[in-house]
Amino acid sequence: MLPVNFTPGPSQIYFTVEDHIRQGFKEGIPSISHRSKTFEQIYKTAKEGIFSLLNVPADWEMVFTSSATEIWERSLENLVTERSHHFVNGSFSKRYYEFAGLLGKEAGITQAREGQGFDLFTDSLDAELIAITQNETSTGVSIQNDWIAEIRKHNPEALLIVDGVSSLPHLQPDFSQVDSVFFSVQKGFGMPAGLGVWLVNQRCADKAEQRTRAGLRTGTYHALPSLLSNAKKFQTPSTPNVLGIYVLSKVCEDLLRRGIDTIRKETNYKASLLYHTLDQHQTIKPFVTETKHRSPTVLVANTDGRTKEIADVLLKNGLQAGDGYGPGKQTQLRFANFPAHSKEVYEQLCDLLARLD
Amino acid sequence: MLPVNFTPGPSQIYFTVEDHIRQGFKEGIPSISHRSKTFEQIYKTAKEGIFSLLNVPADWEMVFTSSATEIWERSLENLVTERSHHFVNGSFSKRYYEFAGLLGKEAGITQAREGQGFDLFTDSLDAELIAITQNETSTGVSIQNDWIAEIRKHNPEALLIVDGVSSLPHLQPDFSQVDSVFFSVQKGFGMPAGLGVWLVNQRCADKAEQRTRAGLRTGTYHALPSLLSNAKKFQTPSTPNVLGIYVLSKVCEDLLRRGIDTIRKETNYKASLLYHTLDQHQTIKPFVTETKHRSPTVLVANTDGRTKEIADVLLKNGLQAGDGYGPGKQTQLRFANFPAHSKEVYEQLCDLLARLD
Repeated sequence: MLPVNFTPGPSQIYFTVEDHIRQGFKEGIPSISHRSKTFEQIYKTAKEGIFSLLNVPADWEMVFTSSATEIWERSLENLVTERSHHFVNGSFSKRYYEFAGLLGKEAGITQAREGQGFDLFTDSLDAELIAITQNETSTGVSIQNDWIAEIRKHNPEALLIVDGVSSLPHLQPDFSQVDSVFFSVQKGFGMPAGLGVWLVNQRCADKAEQRTRAGLRTGTYHALPSLLSNAKKFQTPSTPNVLGIYVLSKVCEDLLRRGIDTIRKETNYKASLLYHTLDQHQTIKPFVTETKHRSPTVLVANTDGRTKEIADVLLKNGLQAGDGYGPGKQTQLRFANFPAHSKEVYEQLCDLLARLD
Repeated sequence: MLPVNFTPGPSQIYFTVEDHIRQGFKEGIPSISHRSKTFEQIYKTAKEGIFSLLNVPADWEMVFTSSATEIWERSLENLVTERSHHFVNGSFSKRYYEFAGLLGKEAGITQAREGQGFDLFTDSLDAELIAITQNETSTGVSIQNDWIAEIRKHNPEALLIVDGVSSLPHLQPDFSQVDSVFFSVQKGFGMPAGLGVWLVNQRCADKAEQRTRAGLRTGTYHALPSLLSNAKKFQTPSTPNVLGIYVLSKVCEDLLRRGIDTIRKETNYKASLLYHTLDQHQTIKPFVTETKHRSPTVLVANTDGRTKEIADVLLKNGLQAGDGYGPGKQTQLRFANFPAHSKEVYEQLCDLLARLD
């Protein structure tokens, strides 16, 4: 038996995925052309699934890339001529910020200390694109919708993009306050890596289109206008990860059948249980101290020098903790709390941690 | 029973792939971290497999992207400051050429008529990168190594890159005459789409490194220096298609066990059989008239107005012909001849076509 994987991505695979792949082979999905009606139907089903699960407005569009990392690059390339601004509170939001420099854009930065959230922010920023990481996978800090709404209020002209990599499908974005949301499938959707999902509204489409018309560089096959004109036909500019898109369409159906409200309630229950266990613990403590900044989907624990001991005990019991990331690699463990992680397994995890006192 | 798929990519899946995916799930591959030792071992095995199959020199390096289309973009971005030159004889080589313009490079072009090869070319080109498509998937025109060697002879300073998308693993590149070769896995390797393989020599590495040091733009996570510094550790800059890389490592082992010489002999046999059948046919004829330009791996037939009739007869017998591409969409059918297509199925194909007289 393989251990249950708590690494926040690639993470535990959702329990239906292998069957969907088997069924996909039976239907010949890996061999179909991405110009076929069958593919268009798969794209359409995946889009409908994501739009239902996350309550995406009907006038938004959904395009595929190979990863969320690619979307960092494509978003800056398409939506920024001169200046973006980045809220950075961990390794991944920082890397998004660094991409801007590599692409020759000026980038502003507002930095929180690792493991902390941002204070109320009411500045008007000189930026075309404001990037916010809803859930820092490296530190387990989560950003709330009302904080994002404040940024929006003071920066109505800028496009606002939300990296939802490890927060979705749990955290419901407020699509009325943002212009773009993206994620990759190997986190909350419990799928093998190799597919990014990028949601954009008309403002993003217009900006990329205007920049293209002005002769500014937006890229090649994955320039946003190219992605969007294909998406209108439920197609992609080049051969995508067809099997991945098929599996995504099926996993969305599974999650919808289970009910997104049920999943969110369970996620909150599991998060409360683990945070409570850590709060009560003598030595193993939550890294994020402020309750409102604690991520419900990636929970980070300071191990007080017991990293290996804890990981070993868990592994002996069939649970694989996620390593800490970056500066926390030796001193922390991370626990993903995704739809693929059952209540039972979370109860077992908390029991084991409590007994480690 | 699904029909055998002759579309040249996504194409017929190699018969071992589904088992490898099943085994991969059993081993927990979709959940492993791309920073783990397990992943490094998978990358190493895949590299050794490709290097053995294609006889790649030991001092070359292999990196992964999400597709060959991405490599069109990344190669131009990393290896060209001002000017590339493209040999264009169909839709795909043309699109590679167009990417150069989209990226703000000047691009020279030498164009053959569709379905025809290039004459001996002895010009010295004003270009940093010369791009040659070894096998035009749209038209079934193949380029020979001795022709490439002539280009090299007259352009020793330029980097020479070969798009081997639908020619590999059958056509053995002459690595002593080129600097880079790339392909995607959904053609000759019989895998689901979503992975590109990029082979480069030290000259490419040096050029990208020099351009980076000079402050010229090479990209972000998939800038060649970033790909290469990770490849030295058998890692990738961001989470890749881990399962795809695992399956590639296994398919290489399968092909090596069968023997690349055997596979190439069989491919030649199948190609001869089909070209002979078409040459003898009253109405259905090979599109590429000159023998030396005929691709052994993508065979294109002019259908003389009988496209639908032929496709229907084949499909009734369990064989799915590939549609023509671009200008040939209504008037041609394409037949992939990859390791996944058995001799028996090719004999059946030729029998059926011969009887259509």
